[in-house]
Amino acid sequence: MSELGQMLLNLFVLYAAARLAGALFLRLRQPAVVGEILVGLLIGPHALGLLQHSPAIDSFHALFAELGVVFLLFIVGLETDPVSLWRVGRQASLVGTLGVILPFALGYALMQVTGRFSLGESLFVATALTATSVGITARVLADLRALGTVVANVILGAAVFDDILGMLVLAVVSGLTLGALSGSNLALLLAETVAFVLLAVFLGRPAVHRMAPRIAARGLGQDPVFALAVTLCFAFSALAELIGLAAIIGAFFAGIIFAETKEAAPLRRAMQPIYQLLVPIFFVLMGAQVDLHALSTGSLLALGLVVTLLAILGKVIGCGAAALSLGWRNALAIGVGMVPRGEVGIVVASIGLSRGVIGPGIYSIVILMCVLTSLLGPPLLRQALLRGREVPPEAPGDEGRP
Amino acid sequence: MSELGQMLLNLFVLYAAARLAGALFLRLRQPAVVGEILVGLLIGPHALGLLQHSPAIDSFHALFAELGVVFLLFIVGLETDPVSLWRVGRQASLVGTLGVILPFALGYALMQVTGRFSLGESLFVATALTATSVGITARVLADLRALGTVVANVILGAAVFDDILGMLVLAVVSGLTLGALSGSNLALLLAETVAFVLLAVFLGRPAVHRMAPRIAARGLGQDPVFALAVTLCFAFSALAELIGLAAIIGAFFAGIIFAETKEAAPLRRAMQPIYQLLVPIFFVLMGAQVDLHALSTGSLLALGLVVTLLAILGKVIGCGAAALSLGWRNALAIGVGMVPRGEVGIVVASIGLSRGVIGPGIYSIVILMCVLTSLLGPPLLRQALLRGREVPPEAPGDEGRP
Repeated sequence: MSELGQMLLNLFVLYAAARLAGALFLRLRQPAVVGEILVGLLIGPHALGLLQHSPAIDSFHALFAELGVVFLLFIVGLETDPVSLWRVGRQASLVGTLGVILPFALGYALMQVTGRFSLGESLFVATALTATSVGITARVLADLRALGTVVANVILGAAVFDDILGMLVLAVVSGLTLGALSGSNLALLLAETVAFVLLAVFLGRPAVHRMAPRIAARGLGQDPVFALAVTLCFAFSALAELIGLAAIIGAFFAGIIFAETKEAAPLRRAMQPIYQLLVPIFFVLMGAQVDLHALSTGSLLALGLVVTLLAILGKVIGCGAAALSLGWRNALAIGVGMVPRGEVGIVVASIGLSRGVIGPGIYSIVILMCVLTSLLGPPLLRQALLRGREVPPEAPGDEGRP
Repeated sequence: MSELGQMLLNLFVLYAAARLAGALFLRLRQPAVVGEILVGLLIGPHALGLLQHSPAIDSFHALFAELGVVFLLFIVGLETDPVSLWRVGRQASLVGTLGVILPFALGYALMQVTGRFSLGESLFVATALTATSVGITARVLADLRALGTVVANVILGAAVFDDILGMLVLAVVSGLTLGALSGSNLALLLAETVAFVLLAVFLGRPAVHRMAPRIAARGLGQDPVFALAVTLCFAFSALAELIGLAAIIGAFFAGIIFAETKEAAPLRRAMQPIYQLLVPIFFVLMGAQVDLHALSTGSLLALGLVVTLLAILGKVIGCGAAALSLGWRNALAIGVGMVPRGEVGIVVASIGLSRGVIGPGIYSIVILMCVLTSLLGPPLLRQALLRGREVPPEAPGDEGRP
């Protein structure tokens, strides 16, 4: 079979599996990303082995997956309006900050006290624990007609804060573990991260804000704002990667720059088909790399469950404590709402694996944690919300909605 | 630099160059595809050499370009409503048929009489000459407010016919030149092509027409018709490649199947961003493979110019003769309108090159022919139309339109 034939056959298998599993899980009221990960595990080389492999094909998978995650983070950035950061206020930023610090500290401490893992492995697990997948929680809030409540507003505001803070942590951690760890190395990475963000804010942002309306008005070429956005996404991703930060950091900040423009709404719409094409394939490929066998060696499965427990406790206690002034029932609901790690934790794991900092065992632990928190978060949040206050029961007969 | 960094840097260079050159050429009232090809030539390894290279990166470029051309042909299929084939009538189908036969015969004869080229090289050049890029002509017709005239209707109808006929020729030729040429081989390929088209028409078409409205109504997952379309595009492309036809044949027929559905209009809109992302990069990569040096060896440049002349004469005489009943001025305008080869000819050349049937010299000749016919076609058509009948002069001040 030609390489092109192998690639197309793989894309067919990956895409059909992704969309079927995603639709099935949505129908079961579960996150699509969990279905995509699990079907990837099923068709991957450690289970059914339905994909063709060759050095060129594997390298194409790796680069294609990276392209998917670059667009994923660009779109996450595009939906992160930094102006809303000022609006969410003290409460949400406190929730977001404590929700990053406590899980990071817990994860790092656990990995280090076992005495079996390198600094890089500990840092990557800790970083994966900082993530919050707000999409999963937002869906639960919408299902329970709880959007617009104080709980929902604090969760959604804190998640924006969490995203940005988590990206900065990842920027430093992904760079740190590439080279030897030292004080000067850490200082350099912090300086690079700060320089990158300042470049984005003080050069990229005004340039885009001046150019976007101008080229939109002049109609240079077809959909010029889309062309500018994709160009900037590639430029920032490449630049971030070249200076040792992860490519997705660049993509994320490129997205944020466009989030504030007037053209953000049509741009979000234009990015949807690209998301639908690339991102499901990314998650299936990530699932295909999970090696359940690796989890059965040593006591990795037990460790994975402890990591998952800390992932839940870290957010519930950290975010809950920060929100105690809203009453303990609201605080509990907010903490539980921040639990699902979803796609962002998986992205962190994929970077650790592709950079060779973590092996298949730790990778599988992080994926396990992301899948379990994404599955457990929604029912826990439903319980916390329904007990905490009167919420209308779910409307019957709406199972047909997307 | 990491492979990921190299890939992202290349994507940045490719995408920025593509969109800038495309916008510039549109502003100069020239086809964007010509700008993309020329800027590819400029940044490619035979000129400035602005792209990073490694075996993994080169293989990624090749597979990524293939993905672009698969979506390009899927979208061409999606815009080819086969029902309109019945409407265009005898005149347009005759124009389309003669416009395929005469250029093919002229190209094949030229390559064979020189006595220097293999059967495969002759067949690929002949096949590239059959193409018509209706997009370029449609833009000229729209500029001259000539859409809706008999000339425009015949050209647009004949181009649909030409597309389908050209794809069938390419299906057979691309398969033929893979194996040894023999009568039984030819019979097998014809049988495979017919079987593939029958499969698409009698299995794929009713299945899609039954499933598409159903999954659209049930709302399975996000944008389920898009998911079905992409899945079918990958499935048909892989199948075509596996049985020895070119992948794009499968993509083209998958597109045609969806062209008739009620969901075709939203699907076309959803495909636009994917087109804008992948297709400009494809053309720049195709331009980067042009080796002007190869043209200077032997008398390849002279041959390229003769091929271009035959490309023009083949369409003008072939299509013109078929339209003589409409008067010679209209016939001339129709023949000239079919001259631009644009993207379809380039796709044929890229398949020949990637399958190793044609070398860089013949590849560069075909690209030269495509660029020249795409540049010369529009002014010739303008002349023919303006002399042939009263056409309102171009409205002033519309240079700002996309």
